[in-house]
Amino acid sequence: MRIAVIGGGAAGIGAAGAAKGIDPSAEVVVYTADTDVAYSPCGIPYVHGREIESFERLFLATKEQYVNTGIDVRYETTVTAIDPAAHQVTVAGHGEASYDRLIIAAGWNYAPVNVPGADLDGIYEVKYIRKAMEWDKRLDSCKSAVIVEAGLIALEMVAALVHRGIKVTVVDEASWPMADVIDPDIIEPVRQSWQDAGVDMQWGNRVTAFVGDGSVSSVATEQGDIEADLVIIGTHKVPNNPLAAAAGLKIGATGGLIVDSRMRTSDPDIYAAGDCTEIPHGLTNIPLQGLSGSHAYAQGKTAGTNAAGGRRDYRPVFVPWGLLAGEWMIGGVSFGETLATALGAKHVVGKAQGITRARYYPGVKPIIVKLVAEPGTLRLMGAQMVGGEGIKERADFLAMAVRVGLSVEELATMENVYSPAIGALNEPISVAAQNLLAAL
Amino acid sequence: MRIAVIGGGAAGIGAAGAAKGIDPSAEVVVYTADTDVAYSPCGIPYVHGREIESFERLFLATKEQYVNTGIDVRYETTVTAIDPAAHQVTVAGHGEASYDRLIIAAGWNYAPVNVPGADLDGIYEVKYIRKAMEWDKRLDSCKSAVIVEAGLIALEMVAALVHRGIKVTVVDEASWPMADVIDPDIIEPVRQSWQDAGVDMQWGNRVTAFVGDGSVSSVATEQGDIEADLVIIGTHKVPNNPLAAAAGLKIGATGGLIVDSRMRTSDPDIYAAGDCTEIPHGLTNIPLQGLSGSHAYAQGKTAGTNAAGGRRDYRPVFVPWGLLAGEWMIGGVSFGETLATALGAKHVVGKAQGITRARYYPGVKPIIVKLVAEPGTLRLMGAQMVGGEGIKERADFLAMAVRVGLSVEELATMENVYSPAIGALNEPISVAAQNLLAAL
Repeated sequence: MRIAVIGGGAAGIGAAGAAKGIDPSAEVVVYTADTDVAYSPCGIPYVHGREIESFERLFLATKEQYVNTGIDVRYETTVTAIDPAAHQVTVAGHGEASYDRLIIAAGWNYAPVNVPGADLDGIYEVKYIRKAMEWDKRLDSCKSAVIVEAGLIALEMVAALVHRGIKVTVVDEASWPMADVIDPDIIEPVRQSWQDAGVDMQWGNRVTAFVGDGSVSSVATEQGDIEADLVIIGTHKVPNNPLAAAAGLKIGATGGLIVDSRMRTSDPDIYAAGDCTEIPHGLTNIPLQGLSGSHAYAQGKTAGTNAAGGRRDYRPVFVPWGLLAGEWMIGGVSFGETLATALGAKHVVGKAQGITRARYYPGVKPIIVKLVAEPGTLRLMGAQMVGGEGIKERADFLAMAVRVGLSVEELATMENVYSPAIGALNEPISVAAQNLLAAL
Repeated sequence: MRIAVIGGGAAGIGAAGAAKGIDPSAEVVVYTADTDVAYSPCGIPYVHGREIESFERLFLATKEQYVNTGIDVRYETTVTAIDPAAHQVTVAGHGEASYDRLIIAAGWNYAPVNVPGADLDGIYEVKYIRKAMEWDKRLDSCKSAVIVEAGLIALEMVAALVHRGIKVTVVDEASWPMADVIDPDIIEPVRQSWQDAGVDMQWGNRVTAFVGDGSVSSVATEQGDIEADLVIIGTHKVPNNPLAAAAGLKIGATGGLIVDSRMRTSDPDIYAAGDCTEIPHGLTNIPLQGLSGSHAYAQGKTAGTNAAGGRRDYRPVFVPWGLLAGEWMIGGVSFGETLATALGAKHVVGKAQGITRARYYPGVKPIIVKLVAEPGTLRLMGAQMVGGEGIKERADFLAMAVRVGLSVEELATMENVYSPAIGALNEPISVAAQNLLAAL
């Protein structure tokens, strides 16, 4: 069995490993345009911010380790076409290669900023590790940066650039950071911390051009010019599917490949995984695109298992998410209030401000939990949180709570660990649920 | 309505506050033998260990604040008898006081160590804040301590005494710390840390006498004498129910008061809450006694609400627990392997060693998760964990998972947050579940 994988990120590597696990005799070839696989691109902002000492730390495995597992990784190799009927891919400079099963894990790109000057030097898309290494050196001499749209990468890069002593301006048409995902009250501590750090936030503004002679020197916006020797692209993820589209594979409304529960595309011998796919939201069935590396990896394992003749199903998602933005962790599950409202989903809300350890214990941090529930049944629909610790674990819990249909009544009566050094007397999830019930 | 409360701990204060909340006109009197209420006794070991700077930090509210809420707290006041028929309590030095509803929140005592010399000076039961203040000064001149039985308080006090430069010997008949609750593989990192810190651990040994002239100078054991100028009692909690027993209230096998779901005792006008009660385990219905301050507080609120004419139910418990023992957090839910085996409960086990953040992110800590499930249905029965962070939040999650009957299959496919600074690619709960399934 010949299994070809397009893409060497979490999804592609997960797929290749799973396929080899199911069928050790399979010939598994991974094509990647990147110079490396098996590194963590998610760590790049934290190396820029000097929280992590070097890019070398982001590598998870050496190239030899892949050779040893029998996975044939072709670096800096671009697939230029897929021919589903012939079961072939065209590899730039190498001609055709045939496959029995193909797994597309082609990932994503930043949504293009279609303004004049987009090809100037000095515009940085945080994505690939070798580029990041070059950029990291340049950051030392950068004085001022404009971040175009306050997406997820912006939330991480603002803190990094501030740490590096670079004057930061954020330009975004929305009214607060990551406005399509996060509620304004939840992001408020982050926005406040940016303000305290001297970040210039231009909400409701839009970039109209990048200006400069060879290299960017300023950014033109609807509300005036901003001096900048660095531009960070913070736009949302767009599935990287020109190849799949040209091959006639079915693509959904988000631009992601449509897959079934086994991560199979509209072609029975082609699977897909990661950011190039779209996955139904567990409550609404609305297709979602641009999930986390953890999702990509699990989807990859599913695709690889099935492609190699095994059986594994991937389920609709409830999307626990979280990240560190400076000193604040933010996170959530499924919907916040803003998204629920935008979707026209009727909902009730409960919120609590709590603490993460006993009030008197060193390292205690504030935490805000907001729960969104369905009126009547009071089933949990989603949650949003901001705090100093314990956000990821609570998001994992609440994602499961949404998945299995737990009601706010269950959460209001939940038991919780109380021990001064690790948890407070009152769990904020429970208090938020109690507050929701009390308000009805 | 006259509501009397015996005990000023988390249960008693929770009950008094809830009763006032339901019926602001109620006359609520709290009798406590202690000098203070509204402090956190759980914090005492950490002040001894100098993690917390002073005992003053443990106070949650001033005495005036209680006066202002209309709760009449009678400090250093002992109730010596309850007369259910007459609806009266006898208060030492003050005669009879009548009540319409009584709430017993009399707490617990350390199981007595019935050996000669138990009345010597130098034997410390960690419990009351004023005593702790006196003891804290004495610790400066203590050279060597014996901890009698490695219960929960021992797990916290070993680290505290080591921080204070005191030579520590632990004597316990069992084979590892907290052997009735914790599995040996889970406590192993703690045991190892004690060994590294030079703690003398005498497992399978028993104290036979405390020896000294007025003050303790050594501890006699079955395996020889141990020099010690300090003894810490680390025995398990025993419900403090002589009064309730004398009043003819029904007491269960654990020594705890039997209560219904509204925290009502066998007398319709007497409620009880906290460590003097016993509560059924949600899976087995086995009565449990000696839960956490968080449980006591929630039970108190239930008892107070119902005593004052409101309606609130308390549910069987699944007991998430956790604590910090030196550098390690340990915790769990419901059963571990050891307890499941002791109870004759058939079970299967899955275990995973993971990490709490990305491998390369500063502050990343190891974590071990062990899941115990029912054969066949694969419903989660319990869990045990040890790690550097995130134990309390996972225990809260898994307690809910046991309560609502989640299966290991659900946990094996759970989604998790992945973001380098706050969570690893693979969630150890999920990996433990996957390992359990793979082993079947």
